[in-house]
Amino acid sequence: MEHKLWGGRFAEPTAATMRRFNDSFRFDRRLAEVDIDGSIAWAGALLEAGLINREEYEALCQGLELVRREFADGSFEAIEGDEDIHTAVERRLHELVGVVALKLHTGRSRNDQVATDMRLFAISAGRQIDQRLLGLQLALLTQAEAHASTLMPGYTHLQRAQPITFGHWCLAYVEMFERDRQRVHEATARARTLPLGAGALAGNSLGIERERLTEALDEFDAVAGNSLDAVSDRDYVAELLFTFALTGVHLSRLAEDLVLYSSAEFGFVELADAYSTGSSLMPQKKNPDSMELLRGKSGRLVGNLVTLLTVLKGLPMTYNKDMQEDKEPFFDSLDTLDLSLEVAAAVVATMEARHERMRAALDDAMLATDLADDLVRRGVPFREAHGKVGRLVRRALELHLPMRELPLVEYQAVQPELDHTVYSLFDMAQSVARKDSLGGTAPDRVLEQCARWRDLLDE
Amino acid sequence: MEHKLWGGRFAEPTAATMRRFNDSFRFDRRLAEVDIDGSIAWAGALLEAGLINREEYEALCQGLELVRREFADGSFEAIEGDEDIHTAVERRLHELVGVVALKLHTGRSRNDQVATDMRLFAISAGRQIDQRLLGLQLALLTQAEAHASTLMPGYTHLQRAQPITFGHWCLAYVEMFERDRQRVHEATARARTLPLGAGALAGNSLGIERERLTEALDEFDAVAGNSLDAVSDRDYVAELLFTFALTGVHLSRLAEDLVLYSSAEFGFVELADAYSTGSSLMPQKKNPDSMELLRGKSGRLVGNLVTLLTVLKGLPMTYNKDMQEDKEPFFDSLDTLDLSLEVAAAVVATMEARHERMRAALDDAMLATDLADDLVRRGVPFREAHGKVGRLVRRALELHLPMRELPLVEYQAVQPELDHTVYSLFDMAQSVARKDSLGGTAPDRVLEQCARWRDLLDE
Amino acid sequence: MEHKLWGGRFAEPTAATMRRFNDSFRFDRRLAEVDIDGSIAWAGALLEAGLINREEYEALCQGLELVRREFADGSFEAIEGDEDIHTAVERRLHELVGVVALKLHTGRSRNDQVATDMRLFAISAGRQIDQRLLGLQLALLTQAEAHASTLMPGYTHLQRAQPITFGHWCLAYVEMFERDRQRVHEATARARTLPLGAGALAGNSLGIERERLTEALDEFDAVAGNSLDAVSDRDYVAELLFTFALTGVHLSRLAEDLVLYSSAEFGFVELADAYSTGSSLMPQKKNPDSMELLRGKSGRLVGNLVTLLTVLKGLPMTYNKDMQEDKEPFFDSLDTLDLSLEVAAAVVATMEARHERMRAALDDAMLATDLADDLVRRGVPFREAHGKVGRLVRRALELHLPMRELPLVEYQAVQPELDHTVYSLFDMAQSVARKDSLGGTAPDRVLEQCARWRDLLDE
Amino acid sequence: MEHKLWGGRFAEPTAATMRRFNDSFRFDRRLAEVDIDGSIAWAGALLEAGLINREEYEALCQGLELVRREFADGSFEAIEGDEDIHTAVERRLHELVGVVALKLHTGRSRNDQVATDMRLFAISAGRQIDQRLLGLQLALLTQAEAHASTLMPGYTHLQRAQPITFGHWCLAYVEMFERDRQRVHEATARARTLPLGAGALAGNSLGIERERLTEALDEFDAVAGNSLDAVSDRDYVAELLFTFALTGVHLSRLAEDLVLYSSAEFGFVELADAYSTGSSLMPQKKNPDSMELLRGKSGRLVGNLVTLLTVLKGLPMTYNKDMQEDKEPFFDSLDTLDLSLEVAAAVVATMEARHERMRAALDDAMLATDLADDLVRRGVPFREAHGKVGRLVRRALELHLPMRELPLVEYQAVQPELDHTVYSLFDMAQSVARKDSLGGTAPDRVLEQCARWRDLLDE
Repeated sequence: MEHKLWGGRFAEPTAATMRRFNDSFRFDRRLAEVDIDGSIAWAGALLEAGLINREEYEALCQGLELVRREFADGSFEAIEGDEDIHTAVERRLHELVGVVALKLHTGRSRNDQVATDMRLFAISAGRQIDQRLLGLQLALLTQAEAHASTLMPGYTHLQRAQPITFGHWCLAYVEMFERDRQRVHEATARARTLPLGAGALAGNSLGIERERLTEALDEFDAVAGNSLDAVSDRDYVAELLFTFALTGVHLSRLAEDLVLYSSAEFGFVELADAYSTGSSLMPQKKNPDSMELLRGKSGRLVGNLVTLLTVLKGLPMTYNKDMQEDKEPFFDSLDTLDLSLEVAAAVVATMEARHERMRAALDDAMLATDLADDLVRRGVPFREAHGKVGRLVRRALELHLPMRELPLVEYQAVQPELDHTVYSLFDMAQSVARKDSLGGTAPDRVLEQCARWRDLLDE
Repeated sequence: MEHKLWGGRFAEPTAATMRRFNDSFRFDRRLAEVDIDGSIAWAGALLEAGLINREEYEALCQGLELVRREFADGSFEAIEGDEDIHTAVERRLHELVGVVALKLHTGRSRNDQVATDMRLFAISAGRQIDQRLLGLQLALLTQAEAHASTLMPGYTHLQRAQPITFGHWCLAYVEMFERDRQRVHEATARARTLPLGAGALAGNSLGIERERLTEALDEFDAVAGNSLDAVSDRDYVAELLFTFALTGVHLSRLAEDLVLYSSAEFGFVELADAYSTGSSLMPQKKNPDSMELLRGKSGRLVGNLVTLLTVLKGLPMTYNKDMQEDKEPFFDSLDTLDLSLEVAAAVVATMEARHERMRAALDDAMLATDLADDLVRRGVPFREAHGKVGRLVRRALELHLPMRELPLVEYQAVQPELDHTVYSLFDMAQSVARKDSLGGTAPDRVLEQCARWRDLLDE
Repeated sequence: MEHKLWGGRFAEPTAATMRRFNDSFRFDRRLAEVDIDGSIAWAGALLEAGLINREEYEALCQGLELVRREFADGSFEAIEGDEDIHTAVERRLHELVGVVALKLHTGRSRNDQVATDMRLFAISAGRQIDQRLLGLQLALLTQAEAHASTLMPGYTHLQRAQPITFGHWCLAYVEMFERDRQRVHEATARARTLPLGAGALAGNSLGIERERLTEALDEFDAVAGNSLDAVSDRDYVAELLFTFALTGVHLSRLAEDLVLYSSAEFGFVELADAYSTGSSLMPQKKNPDSMELLRGKSGRLVGNLVTLLTVLKGLPMTYNKDMQEDKEPFFDSLDTLDLSLEVAAAVVATMEARHERMRAALDDAMLATDLADDLVRRGVPFREAHGKVGRLVRRALELHLPMRELPLVEYQAVQPELDHTVYSLFDMAQSVARKDSLGGTAPDRVLEQCARWRDLLDE
Repeated sequence: MEHKLWGGRFAEPTAATMRRFNDSFRFDRRLAEVDIDGSIAWAGALLEAGLINREEYEALCQGLELVRREFADGSFEAIEGDEDIHTAVERRLHELVGVVALKLHTGRSRNDQVATDMRLFAISAGRQIDQRLLGLQLALLTQAEAHASTLMPGYTHLQRAQPITFGHWCLAYVEMFERDRQRVHEATARARTLPLGAGALAGNSLGIERERLTEALDEFDAVAGNSLDAVSDRDYVAELLFTFALTGVHLSRLAEDLVLYSSAEFGFVELADAYSTGSSLMPQKKNPDSMELLRGKSGRLVGNLVTLLTVLKGLPMTYNKDMQEDKEPFFDSLDTLDLSLEVAAAVVATMEARHERMRAALDDAMLATDLADDLVRRGVPFREAHGKVGRLVRRALELHLPMRELPLVEYQAVQPELDHTVYSLFDMAQSVARKDSLGGTAPDRVLEQCARWRDLLDE
C-alpha cells in the first residue's frame, strides 16, 4: 500500500518521470534522525493540545524510535511511494503502529517540518565543521610551536620580501580558521529559531504551544515570529554555504603555499608520502595531490553557494518547490569541507619543514628595509631613505653582488657617513627579532601568540 | 594484489583518508566505456609502432572487451586499490590477460588518457542533450500548431501589453532551444581534437602515429597540436557547462511562465495531474512542482559552471590534480539537464491551454497602440499620438470604463476628427492579424513559422 | 615633480598602458577620508615612538587636514603620477608641508595602510546599510500596522493556500531584513581588528605601540595578532559582499511579490506613479520598473561576491596585487544596495493595498484545511480527513461550484455526521483569526508582532 | 521642455530617487553610435512603408548625423529628462529638426531598439577582442620562434616532470587564445539576427519590410523569426560574457606561470621594469603587478557572467526591466578584457627568458620516463619498467645523488643487462628531440607549429 501525504483531489497518478524528478528521498533520507526528533516533539505538542491521548502519544514515540533504529542499522526498506523522508517515515510508522500514525501530521505541514529538519541538521553540521577547524588549528599550532624561530623568506607578490619565521606563517592560518569558526558559530546561532508550528504558511489553529516545543527540541532557543518567513527562510543554509566557501578559499591559499613550498624550486616543505601520489608515466614524480585537490575543492564550495543564491533569487512568498534544491548543495559542501579539513590537518601534522632550504632562500636584499630603517634612525626621512636603498639594490644587481659584498664606497655614495658597521645589519635572525611589536614575526612574539592559542584552543 | 600505476619511488603507503580524498573511481567509473574505447585504439597504435605484436594486441583487445562487458552488465567488482577508472581497468585486464596488460600503458599517461576519455564522454553528452532539446522543441511546436490562432495577452514587465497568440508564445521557446542546440553543437565540435599521444605533457617519443589514432577513434577529427595544452585544456567542459547553464536559464523562464499561467489568477494553462503534486496539509492544493523544480535546477547548472571556472582559475601549466574536479559538476549538470528536459517536454505535451481564460484576460487598453497607430495613419506624429492615447487611457481609468465604452466625446477631445468608426478598432483578433510582418504574432505568420520548424525539426 | 613611493631600484619608467592597468586612484580616491584618518593616527604613533618630533607631528596633521578639505570640497587636483590614494595624499602633503611629509611613511607599508583604510571604510559602509535596512523595515512596519486585519490570499507554490493578512506578509520581510542587519553587524564587528603596524608583512621594528593606535582609531577594538594575516585578510570584504548579496536576494523576493501583486491578474497593490514608468510604444502601460530593477540588482550583488571569492582563490601568502580587485566590487555592491534599499522603502511607503482585490481572490477551497481540522476535532485522524476533504475539493471542481455551494449530501458522502453547520466554516476572517499561535497570521498576533517591532526599531 | 517617451497616462511625476535608480543614460550613452545607426535604418524603413516622406526622411537623417557628431566630439549636453540613450537622442533630434522627430518612433519600441543596439555593440565588441587576442597570440608566437630550442622544465602538479622547450610553452597559450577567438566568432555570429521591427513584443502592423532592414544594417544577416524572443533574448550577451570569462581564466593561468617564473626561486623570466612595480616600504622589491592584476581580473570576468545569469534566471516573458542590467557587466567585462589583453601582449613581448636559469632547473630525475622507455625498448613491459625506475629514483634520493651519478651496480640491480650506455640517456636536448610525434616538444615540431601559426595569424 502506498502511503501518500496528498492525492485525494487528483484524478491521475504521478508520472514515473515526474517521480524521478520530484522525489527527494534519495538524498533527504539523510535527515531521518532529525526528522524523527522533530516528530517526537510534535507528538508531544499534540498530546499537550489534547489532539491525541497519552496512549497514542506513546505508540507514536515507540514507533518513531523503531523507525529511527531501522535507519540507524540500515534495515529501513524504501518503497516506491516514498516521495521524501517525511513520507517514508510516516509510511513506515503507519505499518508499525497502525492508524494512530495518521494523526501525527495533524496541524503540521511538510513546509514547517522540513524547515525544522534542515535547521537541526545545519546546527549539527556547524558543530562538526567547528571540530574539524579546531583540528586543523591544532595541527598548525603544533608546527608553529616547533618552528617559532625557524627562519624563512616571507613573500609579497610572490617576491621575497622580508625574513619571517615558519611559526609565524603557521599562525597566520590559525587566525583565518578562527574567523571561520566564529562565522560558523554565528550562522548556526541564527539557525536556532524554531519554524515548527508555522503550518504550511499561516500558522497553527489547533492550540499548539509553540514555545513549549523549544523545550523538547533544545537546539532551538526561540520560536519564529512570523509563519510566512518561518517556512520560506533558507538564510541559514546560504550563510553556512558562504562560510564553508570562505573556508574553502582559505584552504586554497594554504594549499597554494604548500604546493609552492613542496616544489623543487622552493623546497621548503616535504609532504609525507602518505599524502602524495605518483605518476602513471613518470617514475620520479611525487605530487602534492592532497594539496591540489584541497585547492580545487574551493571551486565546488563556491559553486554550491552560487547554486543556492540563484535558486532563491526572485522566488515569491512563501514556500516554493525550488527550495528543495537547498539540500544537495548543502550536503555536498558539508561532506567536501569535512574531508578537506581532515586531510589538511593530517598533511600539516605530517609535513616536514626543510629549514636549511628555507634559510638558503634568504638573500641580503630582503634586508633593504632594515637598511632604510637604519638611515631613518640616522635622521633621513623614510621616503628618501627608501630611494637611497633602492639605488643600492640596483647597484648590487648591476655588479652581480649580494648586498653584503657591495663595497663600502657604494654605501657612502648614497649616505656619506655610513661605515663598516653597516654590514652588521645583514643578520637575518636579528632582523626577525627586531619585528617585535604586537603581531610581529619576532620569535618571542610568535611564542607569545602560540601560548595564547594553546590556551584558547585547549579549552 | 594491488595493481597501482605508480609507487616504486614511495617509501610509505597512501593514508586511508587520502585515498578517500584522492580516489575518483566512485564517480569516474562512468567513463568505463570511453576509457576502453581509448585503450583499444591505443593498443592499435602500439601495434603499429611495433611496441607490441599482433598476438599481444589481440589479447589486449579481447581482455578489454571482457572488462567492458563486466561494466556493462554490472558484474565488475571494484577492489580497494582501484584509484580511478584507468587503474581499475588496467588492474582487471591484468587479472584477465596476464602480463601483456602491463604493456598497455606504454608511452601513455593518465593525463592524455583522461583528457581523451572526457572528450569522448562530452561529445556523447552533447548528442544526448541535443536529442532532449529536440524533444522539447517538438512538444512546443505541436502546441504551437494547435494554438496558432489562440488569443492571449502578451506581457512586458508582467503587465498586459498587446494581444498575441499562444502559438507565438510556444515558438519563442523553440527559438531559444534552437540556439542552445547550436551552442552544444559548436562546443562538441571543439571537443573533437585528440589529446591521446601527448603523454604526460611533453609528447611522445616512441614513434606513435597520432594522426592514425583519429581513424580508430572516429569521434575526433584532428590531433591536438600542442602537447602541453592537450593535457591541460578543459575548455570544452567549461563550454558545455555554460551552455547547459544557459539552457537552464531558458528552462527557468519557461517554468516561470507556466507557474504564473497555472496560478488561479492567470489560469491560462492547466498542468496534467501527472506532473503536479499536492500538499501534505492543504487538501485543495495542486502545485506545479515540476515547473518549480525546473526553475530551481537552473541554480545548480549555474553553480556547476562557477565550480569549474573557479577550479581552473590561476592553475599553472600543465596538468594539476585540481582538474579532477571537472567530472562531478559535469556529470551532475548532464544528468540534471537531461531529466529537466525530459520533464519539460512531457509537461508541455500534456498541459492544456485554457483559451477562455486567456481570452478573458484581454482588455481594451491592450489596443492602445493600435489606436495610436490609427492616429498615425491619420497624420499625427507617433510621439504625439502616444500622448493622446495615454490621456484616453487615463480618462478610462478615472471613469472606470473599458476603453470601448468611453464616450466618443472623449475621443474627440484628443483628436477632433474621430468618429464612431474608432470603436471598430477594439477587435482583438484583428489586432493580432495586423501584426503580420516577419516574426509577428499574426496567425498566418505563426503558421508559417510552424511549417518552417516542422521541416527543420523533422529532418 | 612626480612623487612616487618606490622606484629607486628601477631602470625604466612604467609604461603608460601599465599605468592605466595598475593605477587605482580613479576608484580608491573614495578612501581619501579614511586614509587621512589612518595617517593622522600613524603620525601620532611616530611621535610617541620618537621617530618625529611634536613640531613635525603638527605639520603633518595640519597638512593632512588641508588635503582632507581639498578632497571634501572637490578642489583636490590629481596629477599623472598619482598611482593610488596613498601616493596622491602623500604627494599633495609633500607639496603642502615640504620634507616632513617624507617621514610619514616610516615603518608603514601600503599593505597595512590599505588594509586599515578598507576596514574603516567597510565599518562605515556597514553602518550606512544598517540605516537603510532600518528605513525599509519601518516602511514595512507602517504598512503592517495599517493592514493587520486586511485579508489576502497566502501562497505556496504560487497557488492559493490559506488566507492571511497583508500585515503578516509585510512582517515576513521585516524578519528577513532584521537577519540582514545582524549579519552586517557581525561582519563589521569582525572588521574592527587593526592591521596598522603590521608593515609590509613581517611586523614593525621601530618601536611602534600598536595597542595605542586603537585609541586614535577608535573604530577598532583590537590589534591584529599576526602581521602576515593582517595584510592578506579580506574576509570582512567577502563577508559584507555576501551579506549584501543575501539582502539582494531578499529584495528580489519582495520585488517578485510586488511585480506579481501589481499585475492586472493579481491587482493586490498599486505602486505609486512616482515609482513606475511607461512604455515608449504602448500608451496604456504602467510598469513596475522600480521593482524589476530591484529584482535584477540581486544579480550584480551575487556577481560581485563571486568576483572576490574568485580573486582570492588560490592566492599565496601574503599580499598580492590581485587584492586590489576587492575595491570596485565592494564599492559597486555598496552603492547598488544603498540605492536599492532607499527605493524599496519609498515604494513600500507609497504603495496602496487594494483590499477589495485581495478579498476577491480568496476562494473557498483555501479553507480546505479548516475543514480537515474540523474533521480532526470530530475524531478523524488528520491523514484521513485530508483525503476526505481532497475528494470534496475534486467534487466541487467537477461540479464547477465553490465549496460553500456544494450540496450537503456531498459533505455527508465523505463524513456522514456533517450537517448544515459545516457551511459556517466558510468565513475567511474566522479562519485567519484561528491562526493564533505565536507567529500566526491572526490579526491579534500580527498586532502583537507590530508592537514588538515598533519597540525594537524605534530604539 | 522635457521630451519623454511616455507619460500621458501618468498623474504624478517620477520621483528623483526613482530617476537615479531607473535612468540608464549614464552608462548606455555608450550606445549612441549604434543607436543612431539603427534609427537611420528605421527612418529608411518608415520611408519605404510610406509612413514618412522623403523630405522628412532626409531631415531625420541629417538631424541624426548632427546628434552623432555631438556625441563624437563630446559636445552633446545631457539634460535631466534624458532617461536613456534613446530618449536623449530623440530629445536632441526634436530640438534640432522639430516636429518630424516625433515620427521617428513610429512602430518601434525601445524593446526592439535597445536589442538592436546591444547586438550591434556586441558584434563590434567581439571584433575588438578578437584583434586583442590576435595581438597576444603574435607576441607569444614571436617568443616561441625565438625559443623553439630553449630548454626548460615542464611541470605537472608544479613538480618537475619532463624537459620541454620554452617555445612549446608559448604555443600552448596560442592554442588557448585561438579557441577563445573561435568562441567570440561564433557568439557574434549568433548576434547577427535582427530584432528591429519586433515592436514591443508582438511584431509590427505598419507594413515595415524587416528583411530590407538587414541591408541598411549590414552587420545583420537574418531577421528574428519570433518577435517575443527578439525582444527578450540576451543569449548573445551571456555567451560573450562567458567567452570573456574563459579568456580571463586562460589569462589567469598565463599570469600564474609568469608570477612563478619571475620569482627568485624559479627565475625563468625577467619582466620588463615597465610592467613591474615596487614597494612603498621595501626598496629591493620588483613585483609582477601586471601579472597579478591579470590573474585577479579573471574574478570580475567570472563575476559579471554570474551577474547576468542570475539576472535572467526566472524572468517571465518577454521584456522585463531587469534586463537593463545586462549593460554594465558587459561594458565592464569588455573594458577589463580589452586592457588585460593589451597588457598581456606587452608583457609577453618585453619579457626576457633567462635560459641559463631554465637550464639549471633541469634535473636528471626528469629523464626517468626516458629510462623507462629505454627498458621498454629492451622488452620490459612498461608497467614493470616504471616500477624499476621508481626504485632507482628512490635510491638516488637516499644516496643524495643525481641519477647520472648513481653507480652502475644500482642500475643493474633493477635490470641486470644494463651497462654504461645507460648514462648516455641523461642528455636533456636529446630527450626533448625524441618527443617528435605531432604536437610534441621536439624543436622541429615546435618550429613546424610556429610556421603553421605564422601563416594562420598573418592572414
